[in-house]
Formats: sequence, C-alpha cells, structure tokens
Amino acid sequence: MLTVHTIPGSPYGRAVLIACLEKGAPYRLAVVPLGGSKQPAHLARHPFGRIPAIDDDGFGLYETQAITRYVDASYGTPGALTPTDAKAAARMNQAIGVVDCYVFADGGAKTLVFNRVVGPKLGFPSNDEAAVAAVPAARRAVEALAGMLGSSPYLAGEAFSLADVHAGPQLDLLSECDEGAAMLKGTPLEAWLERLRARPSFAATTWPRVAEAAAAVAA
Amino acid sequence: MLTVHTIPGSPYGRAVLIACLEKGAPYRLAVVPLGGSKQPAHLARHPFGRIPAIDDDGFGLYETQAITRYVDASYGTPGALTPTDAKAAARMNQAIGVVDCYVFADGGAKTLVFNRVVGPKLGFPSNDEAAVAAVPAARRAVEALAGMLGSSPYLAGEAFSLADVHAGPQLDLLSECDEGAAMLKGTPLEAWLERLRARPSFAATTWPRVAEAAAAVAA
Repeated sequence: MLTVHTIPGSPYGRAVLIACLEKGAPYRLAVVPLGGSKQPAHLARHPFGRIPAIDDDGFGLYETQAITRYVDASYGTPGALTPTDAKAAARMNQAIGVVDCYVFADGGAKTLVFNRVVGPKLGFPSNDEAAVAAVPAARRAVEALAGMLGSSPYLAGEAFSLADVHAGPQLDLLSECDEGAAMLKGTPLEAWLERLRARPSFAATTWPRVAEAAAAVAA
Repeated sequence: MLTVHTIPGSPYGRAVLIACLEKGAPYRLAVVPLGGSKQPAHLARHPFGRIPAIDDDGFGLYETQAITRYVDASYGTPGALTPTDAKAAARMNQAIGVVDCYVFADGGAKTLVFNRVVGPKLGFPSNDEAAVAAVPAARRAVEALAGMLGSSPYLAGEAFSLADVHAGPQLDLLSECDEGAAMLKGTPLEAWLERLRARPSFAATTWPRVAEAAAAVAA
C-alpha cells in the first residue's frame, strides 16, 4: 500500500494521485498540514521540504517524476504510461523536464499561479506585481508545451502518458487565473485539458475532491 | 549520427557527451558560441535558450535528462544505463530530479559554481556575495546526494547509471571551488567522484578536452 504525503491543491501531489488511479495502485492519503512541509517529520521524507513524497511499505521516495515513473513501473501493466517508441518517450521526458524546469519556475507560471490562484484560496497575501512580472516566462513555457502537443491528442503523441500526468495538473491550475486562461486560449492545450479533465483520474483529484478526501482522513 | 549542440564547460553538455561515449553513440560536436544560446539559431533548437540540445538525423531534443534517456534507449544495449529493478530506477530518477531542481538551482550550487568556477574561467565578473549566500542551499543538495549514495558505489546502487551521468559533471565542477570541495570532503561523494573520473567517458569530456575538441571543429 502506497502512502501519499500531500496537500490538497498541490499540482505535483495531484500528478501522483492521478498516476496511482491510472495504474490501479492502492494508496492512502496522508495530509501534510499547511506549513508542515518544512517540519522535521516531513523533512525526513523529503530533505528539501517539498510536496509530495510517498512511502511504499518502507520505501520512501520524493520528486514527482521519480514517483510517477515508479508507480508506472510497479503497478498495473508495467510501463503502460510510458511510450515504447524511443522518440515518443523522449518527447514525454522533454515535457516532464519543461514542467519541472520552466513551468514550475520562480518567476514563471509557478509564481503566477501562487499569487493568483493558490495564495487567494489559502488566504495568503498575493503579490500583484510578481504575478504580472511572471506572465512572459509563463507564456513561453505554455507556448513550448503547445508546440510539442501540436495536433497530437497527447504530449507524447497518440497515447496518454506520464507527460500528461505531469503537465495536466499544472496547466489546469494555471487556467484558473485570467492571465493563464488567456495564454491557453487558442492553443491546442485547451482541447487537451478538456480531454484530461474527462478522465476519471483527473475528475477524482480536483482540489475540492482531494480536500474532501483529506477531511475524511482527518475525521 | 547525433549532433550535440553544446559549449565547452557546460556540465549538462558534458552529461550528454558522457552518455554518448558510454553507449557508443556516434556524435559530432557543434559548438554554440558564447552568447549564442539566446540567438534565433539556438532558440529554434531549444525554446528556453539553454545548453545542450541534440539533433539525431532530424529529430531535435532538449532537456538533458530527456537526451540521456533517449541515448540510453536508442544506442548500444538499450537501457544499459537504467536499472531494471523499479526501486533502483526510482533512486536514479530521484537523483536526476535532485540535480535539476536543487543542485542546478538559482541561489544554490549553480550560483556558487557560476561565480567561483565558470565566471572566472570565462572572464565574467563574479559576485562574491551571491556565491557566499548560495553555500547553504548547495550544501543541502550535496548532503541529499551523499545520503542517497550512502555506502553504494553508484547513486542508483550497484551499477553505474544515468544518475551518475547526470550528477557527476555537476559535482565535478562544484569540487573546483573551495566551498564546494569543503562540502564534498568527508562524504562518500569524494570516492564516487574519483570512481567516475577514472571512466574513459569522464576523462574524455573534461572542460579542457571538450575545449580542444571544439577548437578542432572550428579549425
């Protein structure tokens, strides 16, 4: 049984939950309290104090792409979310890298999303100037992913893969602010996001649904 | 034939060259001029203007971990640099993520290395204050990798893998400044670095050796 240490609303945490649901990996949710990610209990799981981390019967792991690759390799049909074609797999890995290095980047979409979506929902003060300054870098990353998607249904090509698991939650959150919605508008990422939202794994892991599940765990 | 677009001294470029040498992938070096990474010719290969990017007979790819995984899948014995055991592969992927998200991070080892090693070698002004401020974050990342290595010979365990390909060039460069050498001292990463430097793929891709190869290409 996997334990997923996460916070409702975390896009990386959502990617791990999506991977578990897609692969039929049994998991339990363990909610890290707000501010708890930098406390000793969580730092023992994740030395950089980020969300999420997992424990699979004593095997601890952090870094979302490492976790989703592990879930893909270990549960259900091994590797079902990874293309067998080397070039398609390369595209998947490039998209995962774009998310980690350029979407979830200080001064990019991460900053925009924090100040426009996550901060307001959690009652943190938001910095309008930082949000506005982050728009060009966020747009560049969105354009790169839109270019990779092109006319394919999924980021790695014909089949849903870990690239979509990784990028979907980030861009879904980005679409919740006006600037993010404007960057996505008119790109093939709009129809791609609708395609992802229609999957049971995405529908079951929206912020409200994870918050409900977290409240049930706490009760 | 792979074309590797890189700059001598780039640790990520070195990782790609090491992967090619380890897998026996034929490649030619294409040197991006200093400052050229943000010019249209390179931005067409890499929309974020980073180093390196490759072209494999018309198949363009960027993001170092995507390139090294592609080389591993496509040349020599497919997957020889990736553990077959899911937990060892997970450790490999976690180490690659630690390098990308925490070692090569603004305000971390990347900043320290830029101001202490790369900047001085290339004649860029270096910022002592920024270097000093980057030490704690750099140390945290080094400690995490040292903890992952533990008493194993390689980052993913018993066998040399893409984790070593990815982390080796970064920590080798870090070891060239006093603060970096001090953080590595006494950790198992010291012996690990010696083990890597003894490999022909590492010996053939030091900064001076790549600079020589680049000069030969230019001549």
